Amino acid sequence: MPKESYMNSKSIILTGDRPTGPLHLGHFVGSLRQRVALQRDYQQFVLIADLQGLTDNGSNPQKIRDNIPEVLADYLAAGIDPSLTTLCLQSALPALAELTALYMNIVTVARVERNPTVKNEIIQKGFARSLPVGFLVYPISQAADITAFKADRVPVGDDQLPMIEQTNEIVHKMNSLFPEPVLRHCKAMLSETSRLPGIDGNAKMSKSLGNTLLLSASEETIHRAVGAMYTDANHLKVTDPGQVTGNMVFTYLDAFHSDKAKVAEMKAHYQRGGLGDRTCKNELEMCLQELIAPMRELRATYIQDKGMLMALLKKGSERAHEVTQSTLQEVKRGLGVPVF
Amino acid sequence: MPKESYMNSKSIILTGDRPTGPLHLGHFVGSLRQRVALQRDYQQFVLIADLQGLTDNGSNPQKIRDNIPEVLADYLAAGIDPSLTTLCLQSALPALAELTALYMNIVTVARVERNPTVKNEIIQKGFARSLPVGFLVYPISQAADITAFKADRVPVGDDQLPMIEQTNEIVHKMNSLFPEPVLRHCKAMLSETSRLPGIDGNAKMSKSLGNTLLLSASEETIHRAVGAMYTDANHLKVTDPGQVTGNMVFTYLDAFHSDKAKVAEMKAHYQRGGLGDRTCKNELEMCLQELIAPMRELRATYIQDKGMLMALLKKGSERAHEVTQSTLQEVKRGLGVPVF
Repeated sequence: MPKESYMNSKSIILTGDRPTGPLHLGHFVGSLRQRVALQRDYQQFVLIADLQGLTDNGSNPQKIRDNIPEVLADYLAAGIDPSLTTLCLQSALPALAELTALYMNIVTVARVERNPTVKNEIIQKGFARSLPVGFLVYPISQAADITAFKADRVPVGDDQLPMIEQTNEIVHKMNSLFPEPVLRHCKAMLSETSRLPGIDGNAKMSKSLGNTLLLSASEETIHRAVGAMYTDANHLKVTDPGQVTGNMVFTYLDAFHSDKAKVAEMKAHYQRGGLGDRTCKNELEMCLQELIAPMRELRATYIQDKGMLMALLKKGSERAHEVTQSTLQEVKRGLGVPVF
Repeated sequence: MPKESYMNSKSIILTGDRPTGPLHLGHFVGSLRQRVALQRDYQQFVLIADLQGLTDNGSNPQKIRDNIPEVLADYLAAGIDPSLTTLCLQSALPALAELTALYMNIVTVARVERNPTVKNEIIQKGFARSLPVGFLVYPISQAADITAFKADRVPVGDDQLPMIEQTNEIVHKMNSLFPEPVLRHCKAMLSETSRLPGIDGNAKMSKSLGNTLLLSASEETIHRAVGAMYTDANHLKVTDPGQVTGNMVFTYLDAFHSDKAKVAEMKAHYQRGGLGDRTCKNELEMCLQELIAPMRELRATYIQDKGMLMALLKKGSERAHEVTQSTLQEVKRGLGVPVF
């Protein structure tokens, strides 16, 4: 095989989720929507990162297990097609742990401690001295995930860019140990839309903040969530001019409404005065009800058949096993580790 | 299976070596000799720890590969019988990396940094800020090795006792996460003989100090090594009383001579005066020549057939794969991780 000949092959995407809870509209905007759009043009692997989920749920493993079918049901409901996208389970792929073990030797503790994503998450999760080793190793484990699939495109938020940088450092260092390069460098695919704030206006939609709308949200839940959304606190009368920046209703209309021209027109009207919050909220609610209703129904059907969901995951994991095992064997051969 | 029923099964020993060089008399005294003695009464696994060898040879993997057959030839030459002892290769056992990944989540960084063995080795190897992550993870990886085999006896030097302690902490913590205990606690088997000093009198025999006698040492090498050994610097004339403590010739006679009564008699004679260094050295040389000659010959034959050595390692690794895979599956089931 000539050097870097893999560069000519079809682009490969690796993405995934930690199965720590059912998915919500933040995931829909931030990742699910793109995955559905990209699955025809890329070879896409979606990894359910159960081992990574255990890194900070080590003492509550049941939570991770229970959420695997939940996340699968969300994927299918959102339109991820298992005949186009390979859905697979991290713990079913031993090559990922084996590559992690190999990469650990060429990354220093000082280097992972310097990783800004790790630094931030240590603060966010309040670890300090009780930091599990698994958490410190997590950028290396992510590099193992990405490289095992020979992924060259990784959809991430800009807070995850240091992870991509660290992965490419590992690729570079490992490749330099082999007679010829085996691992593929990767590029971040930054989302065009910015992160969806919570329904309470908090910058992040997150289960722990209780400000999410799940893909399974009922009509009534959606109605109440939209009704409670902050708009512009100074927009007291319909005739007053209003602010659209920081106004959750417009942020959500931007994220979800399919008719961009109509949203632009509404914004202008709101800013010059004469458009009421109620009208805007009705428009948003209609749009969210239309978006969520079919997903909610599909999801309810899928989640009833956990056997089907797990069988699907098994099949995808078998395909992923072949791919990742093949990379592991190339890495081992490159290092001169005996492959029986 | 009833709780802890495995406690009734035959005791299992896990031991092994990092394949960083051929083995020497220090290994013979410290481990090889016991393995040969124990292999009939215990179920014994000897792990060639190639991945652990890579933890501080990450940039020179060829060294590790080249030494795998060397170490195997040493094992066979010393009398380890592959029909009684399972010889296996760490990198061929994915369960070890997978268990390491799982255990990493329940051990804190602060805890491994406090491990005295890790602390000492960090100083010895001069790492400081350039410490590879793999090295910090190494006590966890060792716990994975031990527990994967359900070993309850681990031959170690007393400098390795903190490793056993940390392994048992992990066993305790992991077992508490399962509906019923899966992992087995282990005990150190401390060697009866103390560590063999180098032929130069340095407390440790080690390749990097250039003070070893290999199992393949030639007659001439043995002759010169014994000739150059320090005795008692104040024992100038044969008739002078001499010191046996700190006298390398007597240290080696203690370690290798089969006739303990004769050595005791020689010591008494030397201490009261009248026994010359030359006579003592002749006795030691005869004893070492007799010990090493058959090993050297066997080793020379074995090392010529690397195909046979690697086939033997493959076979042992297949058996070890079954055992370790079974433990991994029990751990996964205990954690509720799906097992396909």
